[in-house]
Amino acid sequence: MIYLDNAASTRVHPDVIESMAPYMAERYGNPSSIHRYGRLARKAVERARRQVASLIGADPSEILLTSGGTESNNTALLGAASKGRVIATSIEHDAVLEPCRRLERDGLDVVYLAPDKLGMISPRDLEKSITDETCLVSVMFGNNEVGTIQPIAELARMCRSRGVLFHTDAVQAAGKIPINVGDLGVDMLSVSSHKLYGPKGAGALYVRSGIRLDPVILGGGQEDGMRSGTENVAGVVGFGRACEIARENLEANASHMRDLRDDLVRQVMEIPGSALNGHPESRLPNSAHFTFLGVNGEDLIIKLDEHGIAASTGSACSVHTQKASHVLQAMGFSLEQITGSLRMTVGVFNTKEEMGQAAAVLGRVVSELRAVSPFREKYSF
Amino acid sequence: MIYLDNAASTRVHPDVIESMAPYMAERYGNPSSIHRYGRLARKAVERARRQVASLIGADPSEILLTSGGTESNNTALLGAASKGRVIATSIEHDAVLEPCRRLERDGLDVVYLAPDKLGMISPRDLEKSITDETCLVSVMFGNNEVGTIQPIAELARMCRSRGVLFHTDAVQAAGKIPINVGDLGVDMLSVSSHKLYGPKGAGALYVRSGIRLDPVILGGGQEDGMRSGTENVAGVVGFGRACEIARENLEANASHMRDLRDDLVRQVMEIPGSALNGHPESRLPNSAHFTFLGVNGEDLIIKLDEHGIAASTGSACSVHTQKASHVLQAMGFSLEQITGSLRMTVGVFNTKEEMGQAAAVLGRVVSELRAVSPFREKYSF
Repeated sequence: MIYLDNAASTRVHPDVIESMAPYMAERYGNPSSIHRYGRLARKAVERARRQVASLIGADPSEILLTSGGTESNNTALLGAASKGRVIATSIEHDAVLEPCRRLERDGLDVVYLAPDKLGMISPRDLEKSITDETCLVSVMFGNNEVGTIQPIAELARMCRSRGVLFHTDAVQAAGKIPINVGDLGVDMLSVSSHKLYGPKGAGALYVRSGIRLDPVILGGGQEDGMRSGTENVAGVVGFGRACEIARENLEANASHMRDLRDDLVRQVMEIPGSALNGHPESRLPNSAHFTFLGVNGEDLIIKLDEHGIAASTGSACSVHTQKASHVLQAMGFSLEQITGSLRMTVGVFNTKEEMGQAAAVLGRVVSELRAVSPFREKYSF
Repeated sequence: MIYLDNAASTRVHPDVIESMAPYMAERYGNPSSIHRYGRLARKAVERARRQVASLIGADPSEILLTSGGTESNNTALLGAASKGRVIATSIEHDAVLEPCRRLERDGLDVVYLAPDKLGMISPRDLEKSITDETCLVSVMFGNNEVGTIQPIAELARMCRSRGVLFHTDAVQAAGKIPINVGDLGVDMLSVSSHKLYGPKGAGALYVRSGIRLDPVILGGGQEDGMRSGTENVAGVVGFGRACEIARENLEANASHMRDLRDDLVRQVMEIPGSALNGHPESRLPNSAHFTFLGVNGEDLIIKLDEHGIAASTGSACSVHTQKASHVLQAMGFSLEQITGSLRMTVGVFNTKEEMGQAAAVLGRVVSELRAVSPFREKYSF
């Protein structure tokens, strides 16, 4: 099996698994308990908080631990916006878009900035959209489908100069490219554990010191009152360790993934009638997104799976809504282009050999599918 | 070390840990992915859903998987109540009380039923409180501090006859006493994984078929649109296995815990000036809650901890708010009684020997603390 769906989820790093084990079998206390079991759990949670903070250049006190990237995004959007205008983009993940729709339902005005054909958001468009009523702007760091990286520092600076809070969904970017919240000037930033070789069920929201959010989950007052519920100690420990490993190996991993990805892209682009989508330079190091005209992406995924290759048409999360990619639609793709699209996202555990194998299988499968397509006359490459 | 704080959290069962491992190292797919990795993860999540459902006599389609008991309670309260009146009790966990306060902020009328001295809620009080505007009633199954079990079936029947939704927070009860949602007639029921020897970071809300909740966490549309976010696969697998183990050993475990608890209570009650709180019969099998007049519970916890015994003054979650127990206050306890209170909750891994040791240490520690108390004249037992 060749796993090329690292944007959907990643294999948990062996060191991460090892770090978690003691917090289930032995150190199983509730971090809020004052006895020894509780103190050991608390210590582990706070160490993990420092590890997460360190990955993005934050202070540990600015790290809000959540159940994952979706909850982080919900907390930022629903917790920071109470009235007036919110500005997002039309290529956000549903974990940002759906909270935006909830805000609209609650009477807020939400503006969705459109990207260009490469998936880039224009700072000028943002500038024009900010009004005196604007309370929050949310722009994704690196897109989960096409991988395009936005000019976050520039967008954040624009917001700060207007006194508007700026949030970025960095679920796909964190651990893959250098991120420093101070340098970027963002106010909130979402991170997910299972996208960076940590366990599922853990995530974080960076919340700049001084900002108070209305909590999404209420109760015992954990996380300084901003996220109640017993901390997922083992999960948090694994998430922290994964952040530490990601930080220590950031350059090497990014370079490894970029090499593999570029190798894959080079070979795949030799397939007739193929196109690479997203921005050619400003993109996540592990992300490749293609269109093969005359092929149905879903069929492609199934065929690739039969050959032991795991890939995706887009966001795994969009399976439930069964809609055509809103990201590609926003980028102006035709239905034909959208239908023929395929996402391949490499990870630190992939090898150069796998790239060659995957590209070869992909080439064969694309040809096979085109040969049986009812539109085969139209696409004779 | 003797762990007597099983109401705060439990040691993860070795079989549970074993069940989780493959879903981090090998089967790490996103359950929404359509390739083999995704399908294996989906299969595991759905098996776990059946295991959770089986513990409480529900249909798997009625199980909403969440990040834990707090989120389950939030989802029930905030998801089911939109206007009119909500009835809760004054001895609910903060994970129910805080959502109630949010509902009050949003303009709903929330009534809090008071318990008697044993912590029991009167069905007659509920009956009198239900108005035509009442949309939801939430009454805890077994109390997390004093262990009192409410007459849930009777309360639920009353609500159904008035067309009012009924939710119960069964976080402490599930896995310890037999629960069948059909027999009980409840509409929603909250369960937490880490209270029944599963991992932290997983929980469930039973939602009777046909009921739609407004989701608390929005995004990709997982859990039939009622809880978005990538499923915590390993956590869910562990939770499911823990539910299965709990179901298979329900009688034996309850009997084991009851024996230990009764043994502990019998020995502790020999300490002069001690009292057992909560209902003498209608109580969780693992729960003991005492008052030692003339002793500060916090000092007691610290001293016990020094002797290797983990206990608690009440809810671990209340540490953050630093308030005197709202449960004991509602039960009419004096500040003196509240100050001298101690919760000891046994678990399946405790032994009879530990009960004798714990009671002996407790007796000594209570005497020591009383000897140095400024009120020692008053409490000369």
